[in-house]
Amino acid sequence: SPEDKKRARQTMAEAFETALDRVGMSIHSNGIWTQYLHFLKDDKEPTAIFSIRKVFQRALSIPIFHLDALWKEYEQFEKAIPNNEVLAQNVFKVLRPKVDAAKAIFKDRKALVDPLDLDALPSHTNTNPQIDAWNKWIEFELANPERVERPKWKAKVRYALESCLACRRFSAEVWFQYAMLELPDVAAASAVFRLAVAAMPQSCLVRFAFADHLETHALVDDARAVYEAALEAHPSAITYITYMRFARRAFGNKIFKRARRDAREGACTFHVYTAAALLEFHGGIGDDGKQIALNIFELGLKKFIHEPEFVLSYVDFLGHTNDDNNMRSLFEKVLSVMPPAVSKPVWDRFIRFEQTMATNGGDLTSVIRLEQRRAAALPDDSTTKGLLGLVDRYVWMHLLQDSKSDALFFATYGTLAASPAGASDTSAPQPPPAPQASSGSIKSSLLKSSDMYMQLPRCSLLTRQ
Amino acid sequence: SPEDKKRARQTMAEAFETALDRVGMSIHSNGIWTQYLHFLKDDKEPTAIFSIRKVFQRALSIPIFHLDALWKEYEQFEKAIPNNEVLAQNVFKVLRPKVDAAKAIFKDRKALVDPLDLDALPSHTNTNPQIDAWNKWIEFELANPERVERPKWKAKVRYALESCLACRRFSAEVWFQYAMLELPDVAAASAVFRLAVAAMPQSCLVRFAFADHLETHALVDDARAVYEAALEAHPSAITYITYMRFARRAFGNKIFKRARRDAREGACTFHVYTAAALLEFHGGIGDDGKQIALNIFELGLKKFIHEPEFVLSYVDFLGHTNDDNNMRSLFEKVLSVMPPAVSKPVWDRFIRFEQTMATNGGDLTSVIRLEQRRAAALPDDSTTKGLLGLVDRYVWMHLLQDSKSDALFFATYGTLAASPAGASDTSAPQPPPAPQASSGSIKSSLLKSSDMYMQLPRCSLLTRQ
Repeated sequence: SPEDKKRARQTMAEAFETALDRVGMSIHSNGIWTQYLHFLKDDKEPTAIFSIRKVFQRALSIPIFHLDALWKEYEQFEKAIPNNEVLAQNVFKVLRPKVDAAKAIFKDRKALVDPLDLDALPSHTNTNPQIDAWNKWIEFELANPERVERPKWKAKVRYALESCLACRRFSAEVWFQYAMLELPDVAAASAVFRLAVAAMPQSCLVRFAFADHLETHALVDDARAVYEAALEAHPSAITYITYMRFARRAFGNKIFKRARRDAREGACTFHVYTAAALLEFHGGIGDDGKQIALNIFELGLKKFIHEPEFVLSYVDFLGHTNDDNNMRSLFEKVLSVMPPAVSKPVWDRFIRFEQTMATNGGDLTSVIRLEQRRAAALPDDSTTKGLLGLVDRYVWMHLLQDSKSDALFFATYGTLAASPAGASDTSAPQPPPAPQASSGSIKSSLLKSSDMYMQLPRCSLLTRQ
Repeated sequence: SPEDKKRARQTMAEAFETALDRVGMSIHSNGIWTQYLHFLKDDKEPTAIFSIRKVFQRALSIPIFHLDALWKEYEQFEKAIPNNEVLAQNVFKVLRPKVDAAKAIFKDRKALVDPLDLDALPSHTNTNPQIDAWNKWIEFELANPERVERPKWKAKVRYALESCLACRRFSAEVWFQYAMLELPDVAAASAVFRLAVAAMPQSCLVRFAFADHLETHALVDDARAVYEAALEAHPSAITYITYMRFARRAFGNKIFKRARRDAREGACTFHVYTAAALLEFHGGIGDDGKQIALNIFELGLKKFIHEPEFVLSYVDFLGHTNDDNNMRSLFEKVLSVMPPAVSKPVWDRFIRFEQTMATNGGDLTSVIRLEQRRAAALPDDSTTKGLLGLVDRYVWMHLLQDSKSDALFFATYGTLAASPAGASDTSAPQPPPAPQASSGSIKSSLLKSSDMYMQLPRCSLLTRQ
């Protein structure tokens, strides 16, 4: 029936509108626009020309392919209408500048979209999935070249970001950018984060950024749920640590206790102990925090005495208490059980402690004795022998390595020689490691062999003046 | 006159003996030995045969070139002596095994010496002046293959080391090995160190090792003189720092005051302030040291407020006092004057402080505000924008970078992303930096642009439960 037919046409028109709503801003949407016009032209009712004209005019102001052809089609359309000449000329006059503007934008946008492989499949390993090219397009849209109002502008950026995510579903930074685009609409941003977590369930960055987003907007329970879901799906030390910090800020810290009961692999590593101890130390008030931190480090030592990195984090902490006896007994306790294969950094730190941190400036004899014990404990390690074994004594920040005083020595043995003391934080700029000499590690056996003959004098006590 | 002639011959013989004393153990000394024999054979006195025989026998027990020819020459010599047949046979019988042993050693030593370019000129830049080859020879001599007694063995090692130093006069490790060889003869070792300082006057390592050698053997005044000479000839911060530590051990510390008055370039850099402050803190007793350290850091801040590394060393120190207000005012004071070109690490540390070290766990709003201030202060730094600008929040030790949770992100932006927090000492093993994606720094402009739209909610206070 004509009624049915009319309803069917209405449905079709709505389908076209929906499609154009989603992708009508694409330069490739010209096909949909022309099909839409074809469809409308089928309508033989006299009022149809109003709909057709409207769609022509909408399409002609959008930067799409073949605008010139569409313009000609539109001209023919207007000219085919009887007694329309004057009206048509006026319409053309008003519309022409818009078409020209659209053509200019089309040229710019096409230049940005053309290099993109829009059919590229997302990859977990490709570190450069046309990142520059995508950025250029997204920045172009962010700059709002068409000067449209905010919702339309957002739609255009969203279209670019979604096109990008179709090819780069595993790029956390794009998801994040998308979520931030939706602000200040918190719910919309959260929805994007949820899609991101679904796309990259293993990503800690995405989940943490999501949780922080929720926390920032006072949605503490939702944030908590994000951490819980992360622990459920991908238990990890870094998640416990980040959760612990959040919990401390938001509702007091019970997470460390729970972490300790989590036996899943990689869940409660020594890093969690270090983080918990330092959180108590810095986050606590007065000396209570310090004692709790000490307790946590001691607790950790029972499980992780063989982990140099954990031990050194404990040493770092103890270093500022200036409790030399405690420090020495920690070193001795650890070195009595730690396998030589991993103990070098702990020996190094022990020596550095005696050299630079002991009360009254320490004494050289203790340093030399430790150097000898280290050399004996690590017989195959050439960096503990000869002059290389002494370098640690003199290193301070990057002074020695950076100065020209011993340029040849550091150029030859640089990668073997000591790491900087004093500059305790790695965010300080570090010089690139010196290129290793071609002879590799064997070359320092020279340094090793002389050590047999290095002896402490019988009278090892220094006379102080 | 015959008297004069005899005296002249005596002088010549002594010259030969001196030469052989110095280089007679060289495999190349055969020429001197044969010339010596030639010279002795000129002597027509009947007793000359005793000297000649003795020198033949000495030479034949030494691993030198052309021992077979020398042996034949010696046979002829004995056979030419009338009525000597029985004696000669006995002598040959006793001597032959010694010659065979010498030939065996000669073969081994020649194989080690042959590859060496004994005429190579010392170089200040060549990082591999046949290091392996030299080491092999020196180790061979150290192992005492001829089983000679200690003085002769030392002479042989010394000969190898001196040959080595002739080609590698600027190798501090060889000088050190030589000095250690001379122990327990402290004076002899000191003499070697003096030669080393003369050869490498610019080397701090050589001077410091010399000073430590003297200090170890209770020659504190001599050690002090070594530091003074170093400051005279090559004033440097590292020398002041090492001297300061020595002085603290040996006679109390007045060096820092003196360093501060030294206006020579590179003499009293910020490193000296940091070292002095920490020496007072760790070396002092009780809270006095802490206050002195604070004073020194404040003194340094007046001169070095623009030096990120100095500021961060102060921050490191303050971090353990848990004095949040002091910490924040230090950061604000520094960042108000530090040029943006170098301030990134200080901003990073400020953010990390608020994130991980503030009392009660800090709050996220402060962190976000700081991130925004950092992004505004460093508009061209893509690592302060987008997700890259957040990564610092979540980094703990190397957990995040090492886990597979965000492998693609760190593979793409690894070298731009945050340095580890928590693992405050660089001696902990560090993973190699991720390879930088080919697109370089432009690629992260994607991360930058979205930040315009990142806003704090109006209600920035978190509700705590």
